[in-house]
Amino acid sequence: MERRELLERARTQLKQAYAHRDRILIQTVNGLGELTKVTNLLSERLREWYAIYFPELYSEDPKVYARLVQAIRKEGLDVQQLEKIVGAKKAAEIAAKVERSLGIDLEPKDLNAIISYAKKLEELYILREEIENYNTALANELCPNISYIAEPQLAAKLVARAGGLIRLANMPASTVQVLGAEKALFKHLKKNTKPPKHGLIFQHALISTSPKKIRGKIARLLATKIAIAAKADAYTKNFIAKKLKEDFDKKIARIMGAQ
Amino acid sequence: MERRELLERARTQLKQAYAHRDRILIQTVNGLGELTKVTNLLSERLREWYAIYFPELYSEDPKVYARLVQAIRKEGLDVQQLEKIVGAKKAAEIAAKVERSLGIDLEPKDLNAIISYAKKLEELYILREEIENYNTALANELCPNISYIAEPQLAAKLVARAGGLIRLANMPASTVQVLGAEKALFKHLKKNTKPPKHGLIFQHALISTSPKKIRGKIARLLATKIAIAAKADAYTKNFIAKKLKEDFDKKIARIMGAQ
Repeated sequence: MERRELLERARTQLKQAYAHRDRILIQTVNGLGELTKVTNLLSERLREWYAIYFPELYSEDPKVYARLVQAIRKEGLDVQQLEKIVGAKKAAEIAAKVERSLGIDLEPKDLNAIISYAKKLEELYILREEIENYNTALANELCPNISYIAEPQLAAKLVARAGGLIRLANMPASTVQVLGAEKALFKHLKKNTKPPKHGLIFQHALISTSPKKIRGKIARLLATKIAIAAKADAYTKNFIAKKLKEDFDKKIARIMGAQ
Repeated sequence: MERRELLERARTQLKQAYAHRDRILIQTVNGLGELTKVTNLLSERLREWYAIYFPELYSEDPKVYARLVQAIRKEGLDVQQLEKIVGAKKAAEIAAKVERSLGIDLEPKDLNAIISYAKKLEELYILREEIENYNTALANELCPNISYIAEPQLAAKLVARAGGLIRLANMPASTVQVLGAEKALFKHLKKNTKPPKHGLIFQHALISTSPKKIRGKIARLLATKIAIAAKADAYTKNFIAKKLKEDFDKKIARIMGAQ
């Protein structure tokens, strides 16, 4: 191939790749959802399995728990290592618990199996964090306007649920508002139950932390702004989100004030 | 503590630990089942995600697929590295597919995210293999008689499903036969459907590969031998499985011959 041809080909491919960035986003969003489920499942097993050896160990954070499992040896406990993970105070508490643990002692091979499992689980948590950061960057790049209005993680979920950026951009605000609440919506249409007030956008801090009676209003307002932002991201590529956000904040203040 | 006291304590703990080995087995059996589900789930995602870049790649073995994902770069393909994974012939096939791939080219950061994911998935497969080997060793140690008659993996599942070795040993052969088919059994009792012929023991090669009409007979015979083996493992600790197996094989030959 000639140089010009090669350049042309590279350009086409780049354009094509850009057009397919929402295909990637759909994968990372769904992949993240699955990784959450998977790490929860493996984490529950770890707690049950390790409880044979040291049932008194507790940590709310499952990643910290997995790190502690790797560090703790009832014989010859390395408290300094624990301190690196949970700080001096909690490390001392754990050391005291080890002293009077009612768990049974395990042979090294039995303990090593649990430790290998805990190590892989910790690494899965780290992978999840990496993919989450990557997903945020993807969303900021692909749909900067929606990301600015709705936070990148939520923006990514909306694009994924809609099946792509163009599809989301072509949806009316009322559809955006209940996107992800299809089950409740169809129940409403079929059995005449109450319609859902919000779908995925419920995850927005402003909605989930507001009093119930104004959630519907905020959801409608947010959905309107997202619908406009999506059109900008998909078609004009202009960054208009700052203005949208200012207007949104003003109206939110009014809704909050009217309570 | 005095030396004698310490020794006494160590002895008690060892005994206690031995008594709890079926508690460990229950964890590893359930953990293995979950790891199978988890790796399947992550593997499907990997195939879908990677198909954006290289949809033509195929390998039936999901672990091999994950290794290939890590090795393949469309630009500057290292065929030798592929050969190490799948041999010369298949590596050449993949190289040809790369040449005319219809997948879109990805930026390094996009490809790296998939590769990190594939790497962790491969490591989960390796963890699964390690725990499977450990589980086999546990079963051979805890219930050598059942393991000899029914293969260690199946023996482990039976102990886990029964809720421990003693419980399994106290079950009549007819219960052992349908262990793991509780759903079909209760349906039979409630709705008078056909009773299940076999539960977990269906996984035994002799049953799953035999003609349907003699499966029930083989299952009954196998369950009888397992029930006896379980009593030996739980109570007498004598190794009687060789004799049991000889008798089993003789009777199987008769069933097969009578077909």
